[in-house]
Amino acid sequence: MSNSLGKLFQITSFGESHGDCVGVVIDGVPAGLAINVDEIQIEVDKRKSGAKAHTTPRREDDRIEIFSGIFNNFTTGAPICLVIWNKNIDSSEYERTRSKIRPGHADFTGFMKYGGFNDYRGGGRFSGRITAGHVMAGAIARKLISTIGIEVIGYTAELGGITAKLPKHKDIRQNISQSDVNCPDLAASKQMVALIQQAAEEGDSLGGVVECIGLNLPVGLGEPVFDTLEGELAKAIFAIPAVKGVEFGAGFGASRLRGSKNNDPFNIQSDQIRTTSNNCGGILGGISDGMPLHVRVAVKPTPSISLSQPTVNLDTMTNTSLEIRGRHDTCIVPRAVSVVEAMTCIVLADLALRAGIIPRVIKQ
Amino acid sequence: MSNSLGKLFQITSFGESHGDCVGVVIDGVPAGLAINVDEIQIEVDKRKSGAKAHTTPRREDDRIEIFSGIFNNFTTGAPICLVIWNKNIDSSEYERTRSKIRPGHADFTGFMKYGGFNDYRGGGRFSGRITAGHVMAGAIARKLISTIGIEVIGYTAELGGITAKLPKHKDIRQNISQSDVNCPDLAASKQMVALIQQAAEEGDSLGGVVECIGLNLPVGLGEPVFDTLEGELAKAIFAIPAVKGVEFGAGFGASRLRGSKNNDPFNIQSDQIRTTSNNCGGILGGISDGMPLHVRVAVKPTPSISLSQPTVNLDTMTNTSLEIRGRHDTCIVPRAVSVVEAMTCIVLADLALRAGIIPRVIKQ
Amino acid sequence: MSNSLGKLFQITSFGESHGDCVGVVIDGVPAGLAINVDEIQIEVDKRKSGAKAHTTPRREDDRIEIFSGIFNNFTTGAPICLVIWNKNIDSSEYERTRSKIRPGHADFTGFMKYGGFNDYRGGGRFSGRITAGHVMAGAIARKLISTIGIEVIGYTAELGGITAKLPKHKDIRQNISQSDVNCPDLAASKQMVALIQQAAEEGDSLGGVVECIGLNLPVGLGEPVFDTLEGELAKAIFAIPAVKGVEFGAGFGASRLRGSKNNDPFNIQSDQIRTTSNNCGGILGGISDGMPLHVRVAVKPTPSISLSQPTVNLDTMTNTSLEIRGRHDTCIVPRAVSVVEAMTCIVLADLALRAGIIPRVIKQ
Amino acid sequence: MSNSLGKLFQITSFGESHGDCVGVVIDGVPAGLAINVDEIQIEVDKRKSGAKAHTTPRREDDRIEIFSGIFNNFTTGAPICLVIWNKNIDSSEYERTRSKIRPGHADFTGFMKYGGFNDYRGGGRFSGRITAGHVMAGAIARKLISTIGIEVIGYTAELGGITAKLPKHKDIRQNISQSDVNCPDLAASKQMVALIQQAAEEGDSLGGVVECIGLNLPVGLGEPVFDTLEGELAKAIFAIPAVKGVEFGAGFGASRLRGSKNNDPFNIQSDQIRTTSNNCGGILGGISDGMPLHVRVAVKPTPSISLSQPTVNLDTMTNTSLEIRGRHDTCIVPRAVSVVEAMTCIVLADLALRAGIIPRVIKQ
Repeated sequence: MSNSLGKLFQITSFGESHGDCVGVVIDGVPAGLAINVDEIQIEVDKRKSGAKAHTTPRREDDRIEIFSGIFNNFTTGAPICLVIWNKNIDSSEYERTRSKIRPGHADFTGFMKYGGFNDYRGGGRFSGRITAGHVMAGAIARKLISTIGIEVIGYTAELGGITAKLPKHKDIRQNISQSDVNCPDLAASKQMVALIQQAAEEGDSLGGVVECIGLNLPVGLGEPVFDTLEGELAKAIFAIPAVKGVEFGAGFGASRLRGSKNNDPFNIQSDQIRTTSNNCGGILGGISDGMPLHVRVAVKPTPSISLSQPTVNLDTMTNTSLEIRGRHDTCIVPRAVSVVEAMTCIVLADLALRAGIIPRVIKQ
Repeated sequence: MSNSLGKLFQITSFGESHGDCVGVVIDGVPAGLAINVDEIQIEVDKRKSGAKAHTTPRREDDRIEIFSGIFNNFTTGAPICLVIWNKNIDSSEYERTRSKIRPGHADFTGFMKYGGFNDYRGGGRFSGRITAGHVMAGAIARKLISTIGIEVIGYTAELGGITAKLPKHKDIRQNISQSDVNCPDLAASKQMVALIQQAAEEGDSLGGVVECIGLNLPVGLGEPVFDTLEGELAKAIFAIPAVKGVEFGAGFGASRLRGSKNNDPFNIQSDQIRTTSNNCGGILGGISDGMPLHVRVAVKPTPSISLSQPTVNLDTMTNTSLEIRGRHDTCIVPRAVSVVEAMTCIVLADLALRAGIIPRVIKQ
Repeated sequence: MSNSLGKLFQITSFGESHGDCVGVVIDGVPAGLAINVDEIQIEVDKRKSGAKAHTTPRREDDRIEIFSGIFNNFTTGAPICLVIWNKNIDSSEYERTRSKIRPGHADFTGFMKYGGFNDYRGGGRFSGRITAGHVMAGAIARKLISTIGIEVIGYTAELGGITAKLPKHKDIRQNISQSDVNCPDLAASKQMVALIQQAAEEGDSLGGVVECIGLNLPVGLGEPVFDTLEGELAKAIFAIPAVKGVEFGAGFGASRLRGSKNNDPFNIQSDQIRTTSNNCGGILGGISDGMPLHVRVAVKPTPSISLSQPTVNLDTMTNTSLEIRGRHDTCIVPRAVSVVEAMTCIVLADLALRAGIIPRVIKQ
Repeated sequence: MSNSLGKLFQITSFGESHGDCVGVVIDGVPAGLAINVDEIQIEVDKRKSGAKAHTTPRREDDRIEIFSGIFNNFTTGAPICLVIWNKNIDSSEYERTRSKIRPGHADFTGFMKYGGFNDYRGGGRFSGRITAGHVMAGAIARKLISTIGIEVIGYTAELGGITAKLPKHKDIRQNISQSDVNCPDLAASKQMVALIQQAAEEGDSLGGVVECIGLNLPVGLGEPVFDTLEGELAKAIFAIPAVKGVEFGAGFGASRLRGSKNNDPFNIQSDQIRTTSNNCGGILGGISDGMPLHVRVAVKPTPSISLSQPTVNLDTMTNTSLEIRGRHDTCIVPRAVSVVEAMTCIVLADLALRAGIIPRVIKQ
């Protein structure tokens, strides 16, 4: 296992789905950053199931607790430990089906890698619930990068094959609260909701694409040749369970363009060098170029479905089938939005510190 | 800058396009691995321009030199330094157009990040030539993971929009040497070659998609939650200039499937647990599951084109236009194949060491 | 701040002296290690003030809590979070003298480095209490290295200038529980206790030397050229507040010997290569040589004394004097023994994993 | 093996004593630092044997070569690779005695750890010659920290038991060039030279103590709780072969002082907070306090002596004896001075970058 991420803004994740808690330690946060517990709670609530229709109906009362690193509402320079307690855990279903490895989940690989000692309840360490820790860390990162003006906003760009129209930045901010699936194209949003309803009734699940945008990035974030802005973001985002693809700007589409179309011409805008298009997604040579950062993330359909699936019984080493009971998100894409945002904030915070753009003490 | 990659199998890259050399130090290679200089040379030759038609016609006589870490044809446990000298460098064109930042290149971001001190000749540290170092390191990694049976093969899956038929593993090995563009679908290969010819005549360039496959991986490679197999591979592959997207298995396509179609059912094959499909690309929960690893890589069209492009003159801060002279690859996708293979080998070597699957001393 | 230590066995420390808690996350512990909460509690109790005479009389009721990473009494491969709550904290004295920087403490450097945002209560992050976290992590490390037979024992070798006779290993284990100062030379122990009594009455404090011994180390721990066994141990041990010197084997004494006396001759003992003396402290070329590891640690006298000291008032920037009230250890050397042991166990665990000597799954 | 050191100013060492070369890659050097090859050469020459009497008489013609990272005499932000070629190597003596492990050397531990594959010629990777790479990196670090006014000076404080009088800083700079053993106390220097002569005639060797001083350090270098200034320096210095002890300020002597004597009182000097004594060696809480840094390093006597020593024959696994022929330094302490200085510069450069005190681009 390797549960730390980042070089100067470094997060260390701990906890399990059905253990005592999910938590994170954030090291390297500059001293003097004003932090209010509610600012972190808001981000965690965004991710929370039950916040909106059509995700897990069980109610998670996720109150965050600050254990260290914040004193008189300012960061101290010391590591910040944040925890959410797990409550009302019922592991009986996992005990019942324990020997049957769930397709699309980490039951098999986890069992093999950890010699059967891994906590299998609720997926244990592989559960999407672990990302609550990422989101807490992301809230601190978001606050930190806001001191240099960076804003990070994400949305559901595609769900079950339904594609949202490309939104303007202000539409994302305005419309997203009106959508049950975090999609600013409200017409598409309605279709997505209907499709989730239908898939849920069929006992099946859906995937989609999250797009995340970073605004007001300075030129210079990214540490080539290995710690590129793309590479660091991709690594962080692949830590979100169910992510199977990451692309920047025109991405896979760029591979079908000619150079004359794909190259973003430079020109001078308000005395600054900008590009007139943004196929590169705000990144050239692995370094932010001052244009908006664009990253798109492919999320596979939720592997937990109630339809019967062929699988193997680990105890008897025989073929069998499995029906997963209980309530699971039909589509996690809307919830993944806040996690993709969090990972983006975390990486930008780390790279801004590494580039020397954010100082070691924040002076308000 | 950050020029080291990997935790136990760690490579450190150095050199510039028009400097003295391109080199790499590889630390953490177990002692006792038999290494012949020719094995490394073969990989470098694969990447070399001029090896096949339609890539850069200039001839690079890239003889690798071993500076350290290998004694009596075996690794010693000490760091291995490998170097290729740069020869017959002509930087006059770069001097001529120095103040005009090339669209699609790192000229602008490099200038800004390094305060104008960066070596701009031939793209300096951002040049594709730097990947010759990655390929040397990849050759060592390839030899190391072959001791546990892993094989890594890549090919051109798509070029300028032309898609190769999905090949069988043996076809990749057999056909690729007959293709000028590293495409085992020889019919598609012919079309790709013709398209390159045409784009070259038009002064334009093409992109494409590289697919890379890992065979015979043990179950257990990948260190979640942050150092997942996907995340580590993606980060390494984004260190290749021009890569704008990475996906695993069904990738972005998976986001449009239902769970019942995307989940790979388990069954028992020859007393081993395998899946009957491989939409997950051989990775579950960030850990290899024993099925073939599948990664697909989007490569943007070469940014160096001879068509005129709008850009900015850094010295005068005025809008201008640029025509890039000299000979450049119309499409780097065929050459990128060996680099994607190299990065894959490097990551697998690191993760196999981290999983304790490769010992610290190799005993033949 | 940098609060993580280790490469494969990695600990991340958090918490403050007068905050909610002191805690540690331990990542990289192999799955399958049997862990009982009492085993960790025993180590924490050893460090605890009040356990023996002449250290801080205040009673710390330090019950450890396991938050993650242990399931059914075995490690799971997931990160282990351990916490001790801070109770009955009275920060009034620190509030009273806040502006007067305490000589010998980190008040001044902490204030300067963190822009005055650091938690000054009880020394905050610089307090010796933070080492309770190190000791919890050390307990896990101790259990892990015991699986390959390694034993780590420490003792007070010198206190206030009184030197203990060099003990036999079995005497350390037997006598130490009879000494109030963790000194196996019981005659010297009595003198040390008397000296502490005297210094306490005078409002002054004492320092000393801790010796720590590692038994049954395999040959091969240490990763030169930079991560030597000496270097890794020294770095870890200097994380203990008040440590000002570290030496191995004959140490500074070796610098006054001739080579013919200092070199440890090899010979064959029970079919194994051993040295007939151990001036090198069990380390050659930065790597364990199979002989007992010997490290000696200089601990400065407790900086908190009740005698009046000249200092500066930060608010007024004027010279002033300070008398520190409250109860403080007259000598922390006896308590430092368990912390030095803990750091030694942590480093040996990390290096044993790095050398591939401890597997990724422990099979009992 | 682990051959990289540092987090932001990161050096990677390679090469062997009797291989092609000794080299180093330095990553993370800010762009815009003026570097002249002669500045590096001067430092390497200081370390060079033959530069002064009584060290190895063989003449090393160590001309450094810059392979990358410097363009038009300024650093570019790219990794800097520096190399010294090994010339006139005669390995015959090592071939002759190969099976006899040399007491006090790493022959035994190296053989065991690397399964016999290690390059044994001249000690291979464990040779003191490797420190030539450290010194090259140290020259770059020295130049970098000079941009914020830091000066690092070292000297022979003790040799074979002869102790130099504590020098004033200006005496170190002035007198050291007049001493054949880098000792500014010229009377002691004469005695040391005579003692070396005598030990050489007896076929024996001597050790000693190097003191290194850092002047004009800003307050704030050091990243507790684990990456303390003491810990980072100690780790780096223990990478020098033959070092067996490291202490700061009063060091082991502090352990025998009372708190009232050891605490350094604060007062205001020229509007700045300073201490009136410096028992802490310029470090409080693991962070520089603005006073001179004092570190003392115990160097064991050279293990290579011409007197006969009992040892073991690895091939036959029998007891035997060994006489080491050839010319070896009777005492390496004078040469170690420049290496201790180099390691100190390297650590200070890294910590100054980590503290945000040195910017990412140097503007002259």
